[in-house]
Amino acid sequence: MCVRFTVLTLFPELFPGPLGASLAGRALERGLWALHTVNMRDFGLGAHRAVDDAPFGGGAGMVLRPDVVAAALDSVPGPGRRICLSPRGAPLTQALVQDLAAEPAITLLCGRYEGVDQRALDARACEEISIGDYVLSGGEIAALALMDAVVRLIPGVMGNAQTPAEESFGPEGLLEYPHYTRPGVWEGRAVPGVLLSGNHAAIAAWRAEQALATTRARRPDLLPPQRRG
Amino acid sequence: MCVRFTVLTLFPELFPGPLGASLAGRALERGLWALHTVNMRDFGLGAHRAVDDAPFGGGAGMVLRPDVVAAALDSVPGPGRRICLSPRGAPLTQALVQDLAAEPAITLLCGRYEGVDQRALDARACEEISIGDYVLSGGEIAALALMDAVVRLIPGVMGNAQTPAEESFGPEGLLEYPHYTRPGVWEGRAVPGVLLSGNHAAIAAWRAEQALATTRARRPDLLPPQRRG
Repeated sequence: MCVRFTVLTLFPELFPGPLGASLAGRALERGLWALHTVNMRDFGLGAHRAVDDAPFGGGAGMVLRPDVVAAALDSVPGPGRRICLSPRGAPLTQALVQDLAAEPAITLLCGRYEGVDQRALDARACEEISIGDYVLSGGEIAALALMDAVVRLIPGVMGNAQTPAEESFGPEGLLEYPHYTRPGVWEGRAVPGVLLSGNHAAIAAWRAEQALATTRARRPDLLPPQRRG
Repeated sequence: MCVRFTVLTLFPELFPGPLGASLAGRALERGLWALHTVNMRDFGLGAHRAVDDAPFGGGAGMVLRPDVVAAALDSVPGPGRRICLSPRGAPLTQALVQDLAAEPAITLLCGRYEGVDQRALDARACEEISIGDYVLSGGEIAALALMDAVVRLIPGVMGNAQTPAEESFGPEGLLEYPHYTRPGVWEGRAVPGVLLSGNHAAIAAWRAEQALATTRARRPDLLPPQRRG
């Protein structure tokens, strides 16, 4: 399996950025995933390669022109699923990340300034995805977050470090249980005794209980009503 | 106003990264915000500067040791609000971003591997914050997202490009209306006529209606029940 990402941006120098480090970076070198960038400036108009203009109807900020965005999108061979990172989009969830990890190709459009002309998104069937309920200065960091979440699910990228069944937003949709490592006692705080017991069934039960209790306390919205306790 | 960020990470070379570009980068140079990094490896143990160990109770992956994390946290002068980026945390929202933009100092702890020993978070009063309901390979990209969202709210950073009152998750908690710019007709698609009318009240009403309709269609969870339509 290999996901091929193409990122449309005005800041191609930001990629691979953090994804060139650590396990994702090694997997990129090994060809487990691929990353191309398209500089939307190359499709800009006139001597100044203009990519944006003032919004119709007034307001601060600039909007990326539909002709420029569409030309950049149309330049991608085999674009696969087209995604515009936007706070107006569908929330990125771990279930959506898993879907994306099964795609052969994904094209990510990074807005800047006020946003992207809606007609380009409509005409080129770009789905809008949001990495969270806050506003960023552009889509680039959102694209990095989406790619990081997807890449770590590609077989071979994480090696034995990957434990998707037990981590947050796993099959049960819970937050993960807390972690403890050496030293066994630190600043007078002892590791929960059950974790030292060697009793695998008891450890699994304790972790399941902690995961449910943490989710109830912090994110009851993740639970079906009857499990909110 | 100036927020001073300190980032605790095993990958200090990833910072400022994307935040060194564009408006955030210029604001960093102008001293409108500050960014320091602490390499947690500098607090590692033994000849190999070990920072992690196997989880008590078994399981894949490694956990950052509490003594190492606490030593790194304790090394920060005037740490301010301490935040660990974690999928187990409270969701980052625009309201929380606004709170953070008013802090004089914020220390961000970036986990890697399986996570951070829970005792270090408890003993050093680290709040856990999540940028979204998905799992990343580490806290670094989450820290970049959080800082980007905060920095753009600092007065002077965005200049006239900032329109917080009308953007997504503004005072009314709605997704933003769609944007349009030149050309007025593109691929047979015309800009909505009201935006060309010059009638400011009609434009404002249309945008408010679009914001509500988009939020109803895409994110009814953001609306109080009586506004879900």
